[in-house]
Amino acid sequence: MVEDSIFLKSLRGEEIPRFGVWLMRQAGRYMPQYRQLRAKARDFLDFCQNPTLATEVTLLPEKLLGVDALILFSDILVPLIPLGVEVKFLPQKGPVLKAPPPEEWKDFEPSEVEYVFETIKRVKYLSEKPLIGFSGAPYTLAAYILEGETSRDFREIRKLYYQNREKFHFILSKLTQMLKTYLSEQIKAGADALQIFDSWAYTMSPQMFAEYLPYVEDIAQFLKEEAPQTPIIYFFRGSGHLYQIAGQKLKSVDCFSIDWTLRIEKALEGFKNKAIQGNLDPTVLYADKKTIERSVIELLTEVSKNRKTLYVFNLGHGLAPDMEMEKVKHLVDTVKSFYL
Amino acid sequence: MVEDSIFLKSLRGEEIPRFGVWLMRQAGRYMPQYRQLRAKARDFLDFCQNPTLATEVTLLPEKLLGVDALILFSDILVPLIPLGVEVKFLPQKGPVLKAPPPEEWKDFEPSEVEYVFETIKRVKYLSEKPLIGFSGAPYTLAAYILEGETSRDFREIRKLYYQNREKFHFILSKLTQMLKTYLSEQIKAGADALQIFDSWAYTMSPQMFAEYLPYVEDIAQFLKEEAPQTPIIYFFRGSGHLYQIAGQKLKSVDCFSIDWTLRIEKALEGFKNKAIQGNLDPTVLYADKKTIERSVIELLTEVSKNRKTLYVFNLGHGLAPDMEMEKVKHLVDTVKSFYL
Repeated sequence: MVEDSIFLKSLRGEEIPRFGVWLMRQAGRYMPQYRQLRAKARDFLDFCQNPTLATEVTLLPEKLLGVDALILFSDILVPLIPLGVEVKFLPQKGPVLKAPPPEEWKDFEPSEVEYVFETIKRVKYLSEKPLIGFSGAPYTLAAYILEGETSRDFREIRKLYYQNREKFHFILSKLTQMLKTYLSEQIKAGADALQIFDSWAYTMSPQMFAEYLPYVEDIAQFLKEEAPQTPIIYFFRGSGHLYQIAGQKLKSVDCFSIDWTLRIEKALEGFKNKAIQGNLDPTVLYADKKTIERSVIELLTEVSKNRKTLYVFNLGHGLAPDMEMEKVKHLVDTVKSFYL
Repeated sequence: MVEDSIFLKSLRGEEIPRFGVWLMRQAGRYMPQYRQLRAKARDFLDFCQNPTLATEVTLLPEKLLGVDALILFSDILVPLIPLGVEVKFLPQKGPVLKAPPPEEWKDFEPSEVEYVFETIKRVKYLSEKPLIGFSGAPYTLAAYILEGETSRDFREIRKLYYQNREKFHFILSKLTQMLKTYLSEQIKAGADALQIFDSWAYTMSPQMFAEYLPYVEDIAQFLKEEAPQTPIIYFFRGSGHLYQIAGQKLKSVDCFSIDWTLRIEKALEGFKNKAIQGNLDPTVLYADKKTIERSVIELLTEVSKNRKTLYVFNLGHGLAPDMEMEKVKHLVDTVKSFYL
């Protein structure tokens, strides 16, 4: 039963024999098997939009890594398409977006991203593992829309915050509205947990973050009312300087997925009654196996001094294309052999 | 007398009538006068290496903005050239570096960057304002060298940290050695204060930062022995998650220049007997004048509740090319009209 999984039990604070583990971008370019599947699609968007391929990709880490949870294979930009945003993925450059003014955005029509829900259904049919659905957070999506592409500091959205506060809030509320429907449809399709990715949160000042977070709380609250059993994970980069505010403002979030800028001791202290996920610097995977092992054990030892549940192992960010699968597998095995 | 300047007095904790102000990249592309001078040089490197032009650029903000300190016009990559690193600035792309293996680096020969010291001498001859010399910090320089160009997350150096700790330390110690000479020569040429830029510090985990900081402390200590009167400012992005460690490890630094990820209240608490510089989110300059004014006054009010000196106004990062000079001037004027 999926309900008995270590992953879901950890998030609910139930007793577990060991910490659960999954990895952001666990099905990714570093896997030869991923690259084989990727070659069957026309481009990256086509890859995400093809439920047959997306299902296969989502399932890869179950056998190849033995992780405790699967995450839907898709992209955070996909639900912007029904709003009228043009999204392209250019081979070397990454995503390029062209959005009409927000007043002209269409209402979000979930059937236009039916392929996402179809993938969730297929994965649920084929696997017993808990499946994590996901979306981008309103800020991160707005940052992409305003910048038009990936960027180092996503200045456009911070510019807008100071130039036109009203428009800033208008865009965020439009995205919030879309995300409620999008995520709630993922639950209906079978997602066992949801993760909201705020990858660019780190570009915000504490003040701006505090003013923005009610949108995330609004989404989480809405989903908790709809599906009280589905845990909600909030991933935010910049955890080191933003974790206290996140803890204060996000009452409806069940789990905070943190990057490596926050010491685990502080996270354990700061998120007392909440689950924590992540934290290991992903670049540790470039080290030798011994170093990887030591880093994992160090982290888990620190966590287990404080709690025996309410923690899920993960990295502070996604796996990179040039990481070695053997080492990733070793990382997962190390977590799984750390008994509580 | 330069010694009586508000800027230097603030750094020493002496009584001042108002807080001092200067801005990172105060002489930069946003200024039409800068662009006129820039057009006279073949390329950006030539611009830095020409003492006549570099002097003129350095002086621009004195008349145009009325700031309390000037900062040498140069680039942090310039002292890498005598080591044998090839440095190019490509028009759209920014810096591109090609470095030989660190074992083959040449000893740093200050005469090869004589143009830097010559610029300092000329500025000192022409202006009464305190002049800030500067360099990159060892980590930020190493990050550039290993990456070969600017990057979002400077993964190469963090990779090296886990893959080959010895080489990581070897590169940092080589750069530390160079920086001691380079900065000490800037003092001899006439620099009244020094700022060490650690722009990419934010990519480090707290653990890695703690292991790295002794190099910065080593430089600061060395300079304090050579020239006890010359204040040393350490600028680090990622202040929000790294400030406590910086405060613990950098005993010889006089002033911490912080970005907007750290709440000023925490900085005032964390750097009790040290000077603080900066903190305002630079994107506030895209707002209207009223908003700029309000943001500045809010910040200065908070600071002045805690201290009446040991603070210098600055932004959390450099000015951007698309900012308006009129607003920048208004920002400076607002600081200058805030009496203590």
